[in-house]
Amino acid sequence: MKSKTRLHTTRRSFLKSASIAATGINLAGHTHADEREEEMNNPLNVVIYLYNRMTVLDAIGPYEVLRCVPGAQVRFAAKKAGLVQPDSGLHMLNAEYAIADITAADILLIPGGDATAQLGDREVLQWIRTLHEKTKWTTSVCTGSLILGAAGLLKGAQATTHWNATNFLKMFGAEPVNKRFVRQGKVITAAGVSAGIDMALSLVALERGEEMAQTVQLLIEYDPQPPFNSGSHSKASQATIEKAKKILREVYSQKR
Amino acid sequence: MKSKTRLHTTRRSFLKSASIAATGINLAGHTHADEREEEMNNPLNVVIYLYNRMTVLDAIGPYEVLRCVPGAQVRFAAKKAGLVQPDSGLHMLNAEYAIADITAADILLIPGGDATAQLGDREVLQWIRTLHEKTKWTTSVCTGSLILGAAGLLKGAQATTHWNATNFLKMFGAEPVNKRFVRQGKVITAAGVSAGIDMALSLVALERGEEMAQTVQLLIEYDPQPPFNSGSHSKASQATIEKAKKILREVYSQKR
Repeated sequence: MKSKTRLHTTRRSFLKSASIAATGINLAGHTHADEREEEMNNPLNVVIYLYNRMTVLDAIGPYEVLRCVPGAQVRFAAKKAGLVQPDSGLHMLNAEYAIADITAADILLIPGGDATAQLGDREVLQWIRTLHEKTKWTTSVCTGSLILGAAGLLKGAQATTHWNATNFLKMFGAEPVNKRFVRQGKVITAAGVSAGIDMALSLVALERGEEMAQTVQLLIEYDPQPPFNSGSHSKASQATIEKAKKILREVYSQKR
Repeated sequence: MKSKTRLHTTRRSFLKSASIAATGINLAGHTHADEREEEMNNPLNVVIYLYNRMTVLDAIGPYEVLRCVPGAQVRFAAKKAGLVQPDSGLHMLNAEYAIADITAADILLIPGGDATAQLGDREVLQWIRTLHEKTKWTTSVCTGSLILGAAGLLKGAQATTHWNATNFLKMFGAEPVNKRFVRQGKVITAAGVSAGIDMALSLVALERGEEMAQTVQLLIEYDPQPPFNSGSHSKASQATIEKAKKILREVYSQKR
C-alpha cells in the first residue's frame, strides 16, 4: 500500500508541475496583464435564464463557450433562485439568482425546451423586455425564440428555432428562416439545442474578435464529427423525422 | 390589458393543441407500446460522475443525448450529493446521488476538466473500478480518461483525451490516439469537452441501433456548423494553440 501511495504522490507531483488542467479555465482574476486590461475595459455580463422543463444543453452549450471569454461573468437566473427541473425531470441545474435580482445584461440568453408555460408568464416576458432595452445581444436557442417572440421582440424579424417549431414563429410576427442561427440587429436566434454552441462562438467573435473565438473553439475541442448525418430536417430521412415527431407528440399529449 | 390577456390565452390554447414542446422529451413512462416493451426488456442505467472543477459540457453533452433513449435512466453522482462547483466556479450543477449510493451502471461516464484531485482519490478510483466490473460501457470525456487511467482501466489500451493532455495518458500505460473517440473493448474515451456528444450518439447506436441514434441526433438538431475551423490541434493555427496553452498554463499555475 505504501508504494501505491508513493506512486500516486509522484503522479500528482508530476501532474501538478505540468498543465494537466486541460480545460480548467476560470479566467476571472487569473488573466495576464493584457487580458486583465481588456477585461476591465470591456467586461461582459452574461445572463442565462433557466426554467422548469427547459432543455439543459440549450443553456450549457453557450455557457461553456462564453465562460472562457476574458472578463465574462456568467449568471444563471430563474424565477426563484434554486434548483430547476428541466425536461428530463432531474434536479440537476441550479440558478444562483432570481430574475428579480438581475436588472441588466450585456448578453441575455433564453434557452428552449417545453417553453409553453413561459409564453404566458407576464413577469418573465416583462423581465426580458426590460433587460432587452439595454442588452448588447439578446439571444435564444431552440424554442427560446418563441419566448422572445411572446415578449414582442421578433416582430417583422427573421428568426429560427427548433425544426419542429418553425411555424409557431409566425404567430409572433417573425419570419422563419432555415439557418443555424439568425442575426437581426442585436437579436440572435439559434436553431435546436446544439445550435447554441455555434451561435455562442459567433458571439465571442463579435465581442472579442475571431482569434479569441478560435481559441475558445480549440479549448472546448469543438471539431464535431457526428457519427451520422441526420441532424437537420433537410438531412434526416422521412422515417427518422416521423419517429422524432411521434416522440414529441406523444410526450406532449401525455404530459397535460 | 384584457385583449392582451385574451391574446395570450388564445396563443396558449393554440400552442397547447399542437406540439410546441419541440424538445420536451421525457420518455420514462411516456412511451408508446413498442418502446415501452423495449424499455422494460432493455433498461439503460446511466451514471455520470460529477466533481469540483470539472467541465460542465463534458457531462451535459452526453446527458442530453442519452436521456432521449427509451428506457434510459440518467443519474448524476458526486462524492457527496448536492451542488458541485465546476471549473467556472458557479454553483450550477447538482448531484442527486452520492457515489456510495450507486452500486451499478450500464453506462458509466467520467467527465474531464481539472481532474488532478480525482487522480489521487482512492474512494473515487475504487468506486469506478467496482462499477466497471459490471458496466456495459465505461466511458470518459476529455481528461476524464486520465481518471480512468488512474483507476487502472487503460493499461495497454488505446485512448484519447483533451488535445493538451494526450501525453499524460502514457503515465497510465495507455497509448494516446488522435481520434474523436476510441473504443477498446467496453471502454470508450472521447477527446476534449464537446467530443462527448459524438461519443454518446455512437453509444445510442450500439445500444439501440442506428435509427434511434439518428432520431436523437435530429431531436437535438445536431447539425454542427462551427463558424471557424480551429476545433482541433491539427486544424488550429500555431498562434491559436499557443494562446490556448498560455491560458491553460496561467490558470493552472495561479490556482495552486
